[in-house]
Amino acid sequence: MTRSNRTDHIRLTSHPVPGAKHNFPLQWGAENARERGPIIGTVSRPQDRNVIGSHGGSYTVYRALAVSSGALDPIRRPDLTNTHPAATIGPFGQWRDPAKIVALDPWGHLVAENFGGEIAEGIDIRPTIAVTKARIELPELHAALAARRLVHDGDVVHANGSVSVVKIAIDPVWYLPGVAARFGTSETNLRRGLFEQTGGMYPELVTRPDLQVFLPPIGGTTVYLFGDVTKLNDARTKITCRVHDECNGSDVFGSDICTCRPYLIHGIEECVAAGQNGGLGIIVYNRKEGRALGEVTKFLVYNARKRQEDGDAAAAYFERTECVAGVQDARFQQLMPDVIHWLGITRIDRFISMSDMKHDALVGQGVDIVERVPIPDELIPADAHVEMAAKKAAGYFSLEPQKPQELGDTVGRPLEKY
Amino acid sequence: MTRSNRTDHIRLTSHPVPGAKHNFPLQWGAENARERGPIIGTVSRPQDRNVIGSHGGSYTVYRALAVSSGALDPIRRPDLTNTHPAATIGPFGQWRDPAKIVALDPWGHLVAENFGGEIAEGIDIRPTIAVTKARIELPELHAALAARRLVHDGDVVHANGSVSVVKIAIDPVWYLPGVAARFGTSETNLRRGLFEQTGGMYPELVTRPDLQVFLPPIGGTTVYLFGDVTKLNDARTKITCRVHDECNGSDVFGSDICTCRPYLIHGIEECVAAGQNGGLGIIVYNRKEGRALGEVTKFLVYNARKRQEDGDAAAAYFERTECVAGVQDARFQQLMPDVIHWLGITRIDRFISMSDMKHDALVGQGVDIVERVPIPDELIPADAHVEMAAKKAAGYFSLEPQKPQELGDTVGRPLEKY
Repeated sequence: MTRSNRTDHIRLTSHPVPGAKHNFPLQWGAENARERGPIIGTVSRPQDRNVIGSHGGSYTVYRALAVSSGALDPIRRPDLTNTHPAATIGPFGQWRDPAKIVALDPWGHLVAENFGGEIAEGIDIRPTIAVTKARIELPELHAALAARRLVHDGDVVHANGSVSVVKIAIDPVWYLPGVAARFGTSETNLRRGLFEQTGGMYPELVTRPDLQVFLPPIGGTTVYLFGDVTKLNDARTKITCRVHDECNGSDVFGSDICTCRPYLIHGIEECVAAGQNGGLGIIVYNRKEGRALGEVTKFLVYNARKRQEDGDAAAAYFERTECVAGVQDARFQQLMPDVIHWLGITRIDRFISMSDMKHDALVGQGVDIVERVPIPDELIPADAHVEMAAKKAAGYFSLEPQKPQELGDTVGRPLEKY
Repeated sequence: MTRSNRTDHIRLTSHPVPGAKHNFPLQWGAENARERGPIIGTVSRPQDRNVIGSHGGSYTVYRALAVSSGALDPIRRPDLTNTHPAATIGPFGQWRDPAKIVALDPWGHLVAENFGGEIAEGIDIRPTIAVTKARIELPELHAALAARRLVHDGDVVHANGSVSVVKIAIDPVWYLPGVAARFGTSETNLRRGLFEQTGGMYPELVTRPDLQVFLPPIGGTTVYLFGDVTKLNDARTKITCRVHDECNGSDVFGSDICTCRPYLIHGIEECVAAGQNGGLGIIVYNRKEGRALGEVTKFLVYNARKRQEDGDAAAAYFERTECVAGVQDARFQQLMPDVIHWLGITRIDRFISMSDMKHDALVGQGVDIVERVPIPDELIPADAHVEMAAKKAAGYFSLEPQKPQELGDTVGRPLEKY
């Protein structure tokens, strides 16, 4: 929106007031936050906006319900008192490279310190990153302590089994020319795809080439750091890292059809150990449910897999997803390395992942990977061997190469056996 | 979009071809699926569309990346072979009441059986609900078996500790006149709020009153059913139910600042017992991270709470959220009862929740609640007593009313103690 709407008049965002120019131009990849300029996705001062979309990802829709029902004053501005980061992250050289970070705002946690004057003057500038501290308690970590795979040290792991972490929430901020370059397409083609495939979300994607930054209404990223976070500043620090894509069915409910929670927990245990041994552990959690196809599609695929004539076979694992969804996987790891760049990391010593896509995306972005750590066999649920065999055959990392007959032999539970 | 776009020409969705009419009119709350009409959010046959938005919630954005990068053919149609529901749900009388279900498509899992002819002719009709089966394994349930709070019966709980469930993914489908009525506002006001507060998402919200159904790009709902699901058809079945709003920090990572995972797990244990005792257990999991304000806001609030002059006090718990976000809570339970109506339920015998908002929303929608079950005290993490005391003082259900001084006395860990 380019100007305040009168009650009887709604100006569409697709075509602004003729000749209008930006009050807050953005220069992506600039030397510092003030030269780059503030990301302004406000809906209460439309004349200040310099992006497409708004803050909070999908949760803008709930904000709309809050306003429509009278529970939220639409011109209400956040009071950011005491919300500043609970740990210092950066700045790192990568923040000044417009090609290294294209999908988040590297200065997004520091708006109050960089733009305090503007905020005090009433400009609605909001953080897109928040850094806090937490203690976490997981039954599997208690078991690791009981089995003496972990010991408590009073610093990372406490006597009651809880673990200290720094945790960071990051909302997506897409610099469209940079996102297009990552996908090997033109900015025009990307903008058109975003407009058409969403059923016409944000016409400015195609009518406003002057707005180059998009706040997409998708889930963001959470980062958990284990150990002394000041060691991010020392290039010698040994880094253990798992990049995990959300799987609600396993991560929360423990579904036995996949290895998601077991592998995540194994990654956390490895990260705790790294933090205790003078290194740093990093879990990156991306909201990309069901290979970024959503849970409805995921459950449809489960049914199609389980009802195949020859049973749920590893050999047809990816094929079934493609039949239902048109693609085998929509997670596209091309944007994933940004958070690693944001943390100033150039080398991952232990990468707790078998995904060739994640590995290749990181290496392609100049992040060295020293060692790849597969999920230990004893952590794979019985019914998840179908997934594991299919992934290894498709190029996922494994310590032992798979024999072809295993692919045909690995068959899961049919629907009537649940 | 109202017609196929030429390469050199993009027709904005806000203003269709003059005089165009719908090929597939919708009649919300009609007697059956064919009279109601199919929900068509296709992007490959724009002339068939009868809704605002598209399928897959937020994941439309990833579909756009798939198409932009050449990985997905934009006119690809899903092959729904073998994807039909793995258990029968409904139809129930509530499906025919346009005021009882306004935020999902009650026929959304049955598109292949109701519109098979149209799909075969090339109309791109997609399911918005998927019903499958699963086995879940949770360390806390193993502990419950070891402690003999649960026993295995070979049917609901298996000898290895895994639990059989029917699970259902539901994407939101909003009938805008009905949603407006739930929030006590006009449809025009709701449409305008949705348009303005999202920074101008979907101009058709304000230009196309003829399109009354919206597929919002927000996370959906997952339902887990424990026990014999055919008992949904018997009004005498004892129902145990927890309605849980997502909290990634606790549900997955076990953060000790809140009671989310402990209460969810307690709910699952109660649901398992209900299923074993001839009743039905139901977990409803809604994607509403951080009170539907998102995780960035949530972490900012944590910092503000922990840095208050008098410490993280129950007395200021809700105030801190309101300072940062403008509202204390944006979850708005008004639409939540729809899934209970969809399951044909008119009475919940054991409601595993202390939330007065959830209770009041259900009762207001005509669902009886017989007994409310608070979280057992021994499951509340030490640092989560702040949240619990604040919620009880604000009207959350509790077996013993709170004494005023407890509210002032309950103080959590400051940031330097993590």
